[in-house]
Amino acid sequence: SKYEYVKSFELPDNLLPSTWIIVRIDGRGFRKFSEAHEFEKPNDENALMLMNSCAISLLDDFPDIVFAYGVSDEYSFVFKKSSQIYKRRASKILSTCVSLFSSTYVMKWAEFFPNKPLKYAPSFDGRVVLYPTVAHVHDYLSWRQVDCHINNQYNTCLWTLVKSGKTNEEAQKFLKGTQKQEKNEILFQQFGINYNTLPPMFRKGSCVFREEVHEISKSKKVKKKVVVDHCDIICPGDMHFWNEHPYILSDDQ
Amino acid sequence: SKYEYVKSFELPDNLLPSTWIIVRIDGRGFRKFSEAHEFEKPNDENALMLMNSCAISLLDDFPDIVFAYGVSDEYSFVFKKSSQIYKRRASKILSTCVSLFSSTYVMKWAEFFPNKPLKYAPSFDGRVVLYPTVAHVHDYLSWRQVDCHINNQYNTCLWTLVKSGKTNEEAQKFLKGTQKQEKNEILFQQFGINYNTLPPMFRKGSCVFREEVHEISKSKKVKKKVVVDHCDIICPGDMHFWNEHPYILSDDQ
Amino acid sequence: SKYEYVKSFELPDNLLPSTWIIVRIDGRGFRKFSEAHEFEKPNDENALMLMNSCAISLLDDFPDIVFAYGVSDEYSFVFKKSSQIYKRRASKILSTCVSLFSSTYVMKWAEFFPNKPLKYAPSFDGRVVLYPTVAHVHDYLSWRQVDCHINNQYNTCLWTLVKSGKTNEEAQKFLKGTQKQEKNEILFQQFGINYNTLPPMFRKGSCVFREEVHEISKSKKVKKKVVVDHCDIICPGDMHFWNEHPYILSDDQ
Amino acid sequence: SKYEYVKSFELPDNLLPSTWIIVRIDGRGFRKFSEAHEFEKPNDENALMLMNSCAISLLDDFPDIVFAYGVSDEYSFVFKKSSQIYKRRASKILSTCVSLFSSTYVMKWAEFFPNKPLKYAPSFDGRVVLYPTVAHVHDYLSWRQVDCHINNQYNTCLWTLVKSGKTNEEAQKFLKGTQKQEKNEILFQQFGINYNTLPPMFRKGSCVFREEVHEISKSKKVKKKVVVDHCDIICPGDMHFWNEHPYILSDDQ
Ligand SMILES: Nc1nc2c(ncn2[C@H]2C[C@H](O)[C@@H](COP(=O)(O)OP(=O)(O)OP(=O)(O)O)O2)c(=O)[nH]1
Ligand SMILES: Nc1nc2c(ncn2[C@H]2C[C@H](O)[C@@H](COP(=O)(O)OP(=O)(O)OP(=O)(O)O)O2)c(=O)[nH]1
Ligand SMILES: Nc1nc2c(ncn2[C@H]2C[C@H](O)[C@@H](COP(=O)(O)OP(=O)(O)OP(=O)(O)O)O2)c(=O)[nH]1
Ligand SMILES: Nc1nc2c(ncn2[C@H]2C[C@H](O)[C@@H](COP(=O)(O)OP(=O)(O)OP(=O)(O)O)O2)c(=O)[nH]1
Ligand SMILES: O=P(O)(O)OP(=O)(O)OP(=O)(O)O
Ligand SMILES: O=P(O)(O)OP(=O)(O)OP(=O)(O)O
Ligand SMILES: O=P(O)(O)OP(=O)(O)OP(=O)(O)O
Ligand SMILES: O=P(O)(O)OP(=O)(O)OP(=O)(O)O
Ligand SMILES: [Mg+2]
Ligand SMILES: [Mg+2]
Ligand SMILES: [Mg+2]
Ligand SMILES: [Mg+2]
Ligand SMILES: [Mg+2]
Ligand SMILES: [Mg+2]
Ligand SMILES: [Mg+2]
Ligand SMILES: [Mg+2]
Ligand SMILES: [Mg+2]
Ligand SMILES: [Mg+2]
Ligand SMILES: [Mg+2]
Ligand SMILES: [Mg+2]
Repeated sequence: SKYEYVKSFELPDNLLPSTWIIVRIDGRGFRKFSEAHEFEKPNDENALMLMNSCAISLLDDFPDIVFAYGVSDEYSFVFKKSSQIYKRRASKILSTCVSLFSSTYVMKWAEFFPNKPLKYAPSFDGRVVLYPTVAHVHDYLSWRQVDCHINNQYNTCLWTLVKSGKTNEEAQKFLKGTQKQEKNEILFQQFGINYNTLPPMFRKGSCVFREEVHEISKSKKVKKKVVVDHCDIICPGDMHFWNEHPYILSDDQ
Repeated sequence: SKYEYVKSFELPDNLLPSTWIIVRIDGRGFRKFSEAHEFEKPNDENALMLMNSCAISLLDDFPDIVFAYGVSDEYSFVFKKSSQIYKRRASKILSTCVSLFSSTYVMKWAEFFPNKPLKYAPSFDGRVVLYPTVAHVHDYLSWRQVDCHINNQYNTCLWTLVKSGKTNEEAQKFLKGTQKQEKNEILFQQFGINYNTLPPMFRKGSCVFREEVHEISKSKKVKKKVVVDHCDIICPGDMHFWNEHPYILSDDQ
Repeated sequence: SKYEYVKSFELPDNLLPSTWIIVRIDGRGFRKFSEAHEFEKPNDENALMLMNSCAISLLDDFPDIVFAYGVSDEYSFVFKKSSQIYKRRASKILSTCVSLFSSTYVMKWAEFFPNKPLKYAPSFDGRVVLYPTVAHVHDYLSWRQVDCHINNQYNTCLWTLVKSGKTNEEAQKFLKGTQKQEKNEILFQQFGINYNTLPPMFRKGSCVFREEVHEISKSKKVKKKVVVDHCDIICPGDMHFWNEHPYILSDDQ
Repeated sequence: SKYEYVKSFELPDNLLPSTWIIVRIDGRGFRKFSEAHEFEKPNDENALMLMNSCAISLLDDFPDIVFAYGVSDEYSFVFKKSSQIYKRRASKILSTCVSLFSSTYVMKWAEFFPNKPLKYAPSFDGRVVLYPTVAHVHDYLSWRQVDCHINNQYNTCLWTLVKSGKTNEEAQKFLKGTQKQEKNEILFQQFGINYNTLPPMFRKGSCVFREEVHEISKSKKVKKKVVVDHCDIICPGDMHFWNEHPYILSDDQ
């Protein structure tokens, strides 16, 4: 039709080739959402497992996602650098990821919250970020996991103090300026909590990736299975995980 | 942390000011999805009403969306040109729209398909397009509605022929090269169907906008209510709708 | 060759269609350049006429430039909104404009400074800006001309004071906080200078455009000729120029 | 002023950090320009030396350019990947490079063509391309030098045949489909020309970079000097140059 010219206003948005694509999504207004749905504080195991389950769905659907890392209301998805998905069109990649995550979150809600109906539709924002080298990807993931550590330690202290009777404001004041080590001591000395024995999912966040399955089979092809684990991925501090899983960020995955 | 530098790889993506923003989303692989969920052919009233209901949710959530138009598995959302939503950051706008639409689609599924469980999570792609003037917005919407007319007339003929016993291939062959008028005659003469009396939602798609509600109230403020209608919006052929609703695309909405 | 894949890293950068393109260039380090070449202060007539001559060359070379406005070491070039030059590729448009301006500046230098050799190669930065409507183009040009007025009045006062014996610092201090009207009075009362009779090129900057030439000719085609003038172009204050030259920013130039 | 809002239409265009920036410029319409100025065919030594001299000026002005490669009417400039020049704003980088090159070309023209006045202002287009790794930069430069080899060999044959009496069309026909080796044999057997002894600048193009100068000085700081050479830079075929100059593309130049 004579109106078709408007299609020409759609401008190309292809991403630089041979560069790592990371899509990070983050719950929109999840402070309110988590309160409306009475998530446990500071960490709601079911809420986090629901997030993980959605991330698994993304890895199942998008073979080019080689790794995902989740904490709180956010998840980061790492696409292999050679990915040609949607011709590397940024909008296509961003929109389909955030869309599938969102719809899956609602689909699976009842599985993780069987007795809690969804009060309203949750939503997520998303962004695409490019990184030129694998070292940047390591640093990116380290950034998110360090953030997880800092926030979780703080939140654990805060809510422990609040549960012990302090108001939120008193607890915040109390923690102001304390260092990492001091926070651990407060937890241990005042409440008998050994921070390092708290659930790894809370302390370390969640990693989703394909684990090589070595099974006796006729074909010698290595099978892979999407798994969730709560690993140390801070580099270069702890290269253990990356050394054990060299194929994840290798060029020819 | 020393890893925070990776945040600087997030580049700004603000959209040109004072320009109409249209977000169009489209069901990903809905050929398969509509078959898996046995949508009626060529138009499934419930599927379309579910789409409309999701669009209403978007207008409820985003005051800057002034108009939406939906047909088949797609929906277009027009933001007012002065919108400052998310500082006009393209990724934020795109991702939150497509996310909320997707999660709402699943949330409301059972309302429209009470006896049909969702087999898998649906998803939508999305894109952002800019248009400099209101005339372009008119042309954009005309483009989508003309598309709706053409596709719907063709599909109506096709499926009527198929229901009458032809194979899909035979029906396609039969329709090849026929003009609009001929298609109407086939429908009328062979099947007694007057195309123009078929449901407007099928023929015209759906418009979602805020209707002014004139009620006797103390405050003289005009209230607005989000409604769905199946209007003629092709310009300049039919300016009736736009003349009746001048405020929708006016600058100072 | 096997290296050709690197070409695919060149990403498209087409500008939104049907939108006004303005390229603004600005002398790089012209404070130093104007001192090295002993430009008269605050305005060097030859330097400005050289700039104008370069702008004329751009209009001669690029038919899609419909208007240019210059002041100090900068020049803005307005492309008609329907321009398809270089398929609207931003880099091509930007680079060829700034390149031709720069080489022409050196080519023509001796014409305007016959007794002053160029000491080193001048250069210009450049940028591309898009404007959705003609009203924005009016506002853009108004912005530049208002800037010209403000700077020129200030500089005229400053250098008059300096020439009269004040140090630069004393003159600056003296002018601090004075209003437009006060500056005019200083000039008039202390130095007998009527600001409004100073050369229009200094006060208003320079406009370059195609003037319609009405000559008796066999073909009735209106001829156009690139001219420089020092017009009032601030809108809506003074629409005289635009009313007299409606074709310049009309859609179908 | 109230018009300043138009400045907000200038959108940020910062380039991805930590990525190699290559600016390639290319003479605009140099087929015509080289004919108008009677450049020798297929290679004009003075024209090429003028190009090289301009490239040297760019390295002198922009410390972040670590390498440049020129052939025919084009030049590529490699910025170190950590460059923060102009906050990595693409337009600033592109426009200042192409501007300085263009003005310098005219400035230095008479030095290389003392008896040939410039007939009109030459101009260059330019583009910015990003490459994530040093291997890509190697491949990029290899791409350009392979292109140089292919074109120069072809052009050398073509113009030798033309000078020997063939028309341009006959010569083209004659060469159609011939391989590299055959072309060398034509040159040698028919014209006694040993291709490999032709001037390296014609066969290999020109490299501009900073050579380390090891001089006995009190400070042990290594001095660097911008030089032009005609090196083999095709990788991995010939790593000799890169092995000898590891600092050029090293991270911490
Ligand atoms: N109680 C509880 N709250 C959680 C949990 N995970 C996340 N949240 C809440 C705590 C934070 O207020 C919020 C995440 O912080 P954000 O910075 O993402 O803020 P929010 O999502 O409210 O706003 P945003 O739209 O992202 O700017 O989600 C959880 O497991 N339990
Ligand atoms: N039976 C039925 N099918 C529908 C209805 N609405 C949409 N569809 C189907 C028919 C089309 O095959 C499909 C929409 O066409 P598209 O061009 O969007 O293709 P599809 O979504 O399969 O692929 P895509 O991911 O968008 O490239 O959705 C409906 O009301 N009833
Ligand atoms: N004496 C004299 N100086 C002029 C004339 N026109 C421009 N200039 C000088 C005065 C200013 O210092 C300078 C223009 O100001 P800019 O803001 O463009 O600064 P500049 O070019 O030094 O730095 P930039 O590279 O643009 O950031 O050029 C003139 O006609 N006479
Ligand atoms: N005679 C002669 N011509 C040369 C020399 N170097 C370059 N040229 C000419 C030959 C080619 O026609 C032209 C370069 O080819 P391009 O593909 O860049 O084409 P041109 O610049 O004409 O058009 P463009 O604006 O780049 O698309 O410049 C030279 O040393 N001697
Ligand atoms: O959302 P925050 O506060 O963690 O920080 P951000 O995500 O970088 O901010 P924004 O969502 O506005 O991009
Ligand atoms: O999806 P289509 O076939 O209607 O056409 P398109 O949406 O323009 O194509 P794409 O989804 O690839 O942008
Ligand atoms: O150059 P200025 O100071 O007039 O201001 P600007 O041009 O907006 O700044 P920049 O040259 O850094 O874009
Ligand atoms: O200019 P060409 O023909 O060498 O090829 P190109 O430079 O890639 O084409 P364009 O100048 O149009 O980008
Ligand atoms: Mg955020
Ligand atoms: Mg959030
Ligand atoms: Mg968050
Ligand atoms: Mg599509
Ligand atoms: Mg679809
Ligand atoms: Mg569709
Ligand atoms: Mg500037
Ligand atoms: Mg300047
Ligand atoms: Mg200036
Ligand atoms: Mg080219
Ligand atoms: Mg060329
Ligand atoms: Mg060339």
